[in-house]
This record gives sequence, C-alpha cells and structure tokens, in this order.
Amino acid sequence: MPFTPRTPRVVAARRLHRRRDRDATGRFLAEGPQAVREALARPGTVAELFGTPAALDRHADLAARAAADDVPVSDVTDDALAALTETVAPQGLVAVCRHLDVPLSEALAAGPRLVAVLAEIRDPGNAGTVLRTADAAGAGAVIFAGDAVDPYNGKCVRASAGSLFHVDVVRAGDPLAVVAALRAAGLAVLATTGYGDRDLDDLADADALATPTAWLFGSEAHGLPDGLTAVADARVRVPLHGRAESLNLAAAAAVCLYASARALRRRP
Amino acid sequence: MPFTPRTPRVVAARRLHRRRDRDATGRFLAEGPQAVREALARPGTVAELFGTPAALDRHADLAARAAADDVPVSDVTDDALAALTETVAPQGLVAVCRHLDVPLSEALAAGPRLVAVLAEIRDPGNAGTVLRTADAAGAGAVIFAGDAVDPYNGKCVRASAGSLFHVDVVRAGDPLAVVAALRAAGLAVLATTGYGDRDLDDLADADALATPTAWLFGSEAHGLPDGLTAVADARVRVPLHGRAESLNLAAAAAVCLYASARALRRRP
Repeated sequence: MPFTPRTPRVVAARRLHRRRDRDATGRFLAEGPQAVREALARPGTVAELFGTPAALDRHADLAARAAADDVPVSDVTDDALAALTETVAPQGLVAVCRHLDVPLSEALAAGPRLVAVLAEIRDPGNAGTVLRTADAAGAGAVIFAGDAVDPYNGKCVRASAGSLFHVDVVRAGDPLAVVAALRAAGLAVLATTGYGDRDLDDLADADALATPTAWLFGSEAHGLPDGLTAVADARVRVPLHGRAESLNLAAAAAVCLYASARALRRRP
Repeated sequence: MPFTPRTPRVVAARRLHRRRDRDATGRFLAEGPQAVREALARPGTVAELFGTPAALDRHADLAARAAADDVPVSDVTDDALAALTETVAPQGLVAVCRHLDVPLSEALAAGPRLVAVLAEIRDPGNAGTVLRTADAAGAGAVIFAGDAVDPYNGKCVRASAGSLFHVDVVRAGDPLAVVAALRAAGLAVLATTGYGDRDLDDLADADALATPTAWLFGSEAHGLPDGLTAVADARVRVPLHGRAESLNLAAAAAVCLYASARALRRRP
C-alpha cells in the first residue's frame, strides 16, 4: 500500500517545509529527479526517498541506487507526493536529505580559489540562483553569512538546480568573522556595491582578479551592511553603461564571479 | 471624490492586465513611483496617472510633472489602486502608458553597438530581467522575437526596473528575418547555447567581441530554436568551470552582454 498524506513518515517529512523543523532535525527536502540524482551522488546525504509508483518505475535507476545505499524507498500516493512537494510538476520524486553544510574552517582548508559570500541575503530564490552561478563559475565554497536565508529552504534548493550538492556550503554567523577567516586563508575579499570606488573592468585590466578571491554579495534591497563593506580589501562596482540604475543580484553576481573565473583560468 | 474600482476609467485601465486588451488599445500599466518617473521622462508615453491621495501628495513632483504634460491625474481609493496593480506594495501610483516599441528598422537605424534578442522567451520575469541587464550593459535595443512574451506584461515591466523606458524595444515576428536584418546592419550575430562550439572566453581573448554584436537568447527550458542557432555567425557557450549543468538565463545573458560591453568599451 502506498503511503498517504496521513502516514506518519509522510507527516514527519512534510514538516521539513518549515525552517524550525529543518533546524531541529538537520534534514531537508529535495524534489524532482535531477535533485534526487545529485543528492544520491553524495554518499550519506539521502535519508529517505519517496516516489509515486509511476515515478519510481520511470526512474528505476534512482530507486536502485537508493536501495543499494540502504536508503529506504517508499511508494506514495499522488496526494502524499503533493503534500511533500512545493512545485506544480514535481515529477513524482522527493528525497529527505541530511544537511550537508560544513564548517568554514573545513571549506577553507580545501583551498578554494573562488568563494561567494551571501551576506544577509533573505530571498531564497536569489540565494539559490547565486549558488548555482557560483558553482558554474568554479567556486569551491558558498557561505551563507549573518541573518541569511536557510540554504535548505525549498525555493533555494530548487533555484540552485543541484548546485547545493556540488559545492561546499557553509552557514556562518558573524559576517565580519567570515571576512577575517577568508583573509587569513589568503583570499582577497571584494565587496560588490553600486557605490564601489573600483570598476570591475579596471580590476580585471590591472590583473587584480588573477588571485584567490572571495566575493561579498548583499541583498538586492539593502546591499551589504556598511561595516562589511568597510573591511573588504576593495569595494567594486559593476559598470553601468546604459541608464539602468542597478543590476539585479543574480546578474551582478554572475558578472563578478565570471570575471574572476576568467582571470583565474589563465593562471592555473 | 476619488475614483473607485467601479469608476469607468478605472474599469477600463484595469483591463490592461490582459494581453488582449493591451494589444487592442496599445496601452499598458506601469506601477510604483520609479516606473512612473521613468515613464514620465519619455514625453508622450504616459496617457493617464492614478494615485491614492497620500501617494500623490508624497510624490507631488510626479503629479506636477504629469499635469505639466497635460496628463490627466486622478485620485483613486485604496481599493481602486489595488485593482489596478499586481504587487503587494505598489506604493500608491500607477500610470496608463502608451506602447513604446519601435520598428526594427528604426532601432537599427540608430546604430546600436550592442543588441539583445529574446527569441521565443515566454517567462515575463526572465525577459524583464534580461532587458534590465541589457540596458545596464549599454545595449541600444532589445528585440522580442517570435512567440515571445509581451514586453508590456506587468511582471516583465516590473522586472525591467525602468529599463523598458530606456532602450529601444522592438517586437518582431520571424526571428530568422530579425537575424537577416541585424546582419545587414553590420552586427555580428552570436547565439548563446550550452552546446556552442566557441567558448566565450576564447572569443574575448581573440578580440572577437570588440565589434557591434547582437546576442540571441532562448528560453531556459527550450533554448534557441535550432534553425536560429544554425544561421548565427557563431554558437557560443558560457564556460562551466564547476559541476553545474547550466546557468539560468539571466546569469548567462549577464555574462555574455558584459563580455561584449567590456570589449566594446576599450574601442570607443
């Protein structure tokens, strides 16, 4: 018999839509075959897999992979699946995953040459998109600092398109302590701000980006906290060539991270 | 007496939430003081301005500017304002604007050095974001080609953050005809695709971007139509340094447009 929305394990998993329950259990939900595949690729991450019979049949490789790793795999009804997922077309699969963030010290010990810091960014879609872009640009770590969104928020997980499972994710408290640790690890710390005194193109032309770098990004509405901007090694603005007053966060982060990626690529 | 949701002019304006009525009347809605300010900066664009008494008082400069341009300004109740707007906090103002797209020939006659083509992009948020990024990167024209979203869709207008009023917006039918016209105007036509045989960094290193360029962007789900990719001068991929399978549309467009902006900037 497939599990229904009232089956205790479904009820328990469904509570993970709430941050309080994610924090208390150290678990979160990842929905859809792409996310489930990425999660299964990290041994020990998936705690439980739910799927409609049709989806488990269609993705028999994923069900087999889970079973081989001793992950419980359970049939659920369409109603139970709907209760466990947040999107209109979740494609029949959802995994309960274990939190996978690592301490800052561990992430830095791996020697990343490119790091993104999301400082006080509260919008989960923006945070997940920057996480995806940071992964694409080759960042080794993405740090959620200060009062930032929960990286395991469903919308953030979905916007990351699997990248949550690719890079070292760090949850850190005080952003100033993060900057100190980044600098101690030998990274240049660059703050992005529309009011920066350094133009991104000029930095690139001066070959100043061909060094291990951590980028600080703030929220679209409020920018970076002043104290954080002040302690960075440089305050960098993305040039505005037209009449737009600003870029949105995802676009600004993409331009900055890819400027670093390009500079670092030529210096292996 | 302020207008209510049942006042005929409010009823008529409210219909502009629907594409059919926008197409039939050639008008659309722009909400919030920022958009209203940008719209008023283009003479002849605003046909009518509605605001709550508090908002018209708070933004007396905008009300005065409208009145000076013979634009009717009307008080509306909170309920009428809510009926005319789509966001939770519209800040009390909404303008009925005249469509402002121009024919492709007119946009090309202005000699833009950077152009973005949104080919069959149906998501209004994505389209508006790319429009904003194109403006920031200095693009002179943004072309909505083929079966693309209506640029006057409320979500697109909001995501553009005013850029709809800054650049030449073109609505074109056949994307293949657009490519032919772009090429005839002397622009290099570059198609962005995850399967491109040219790496963006390599193009930049080869100084191939320091020439007037039109970028073709397709939808995140479906990419560019094959026929369109085939006729471009080059098929370009944004390099993926990490393990992300792709970038989202807004990030990819930001990286490509800013690569061109940087190359063109050094060649005034």
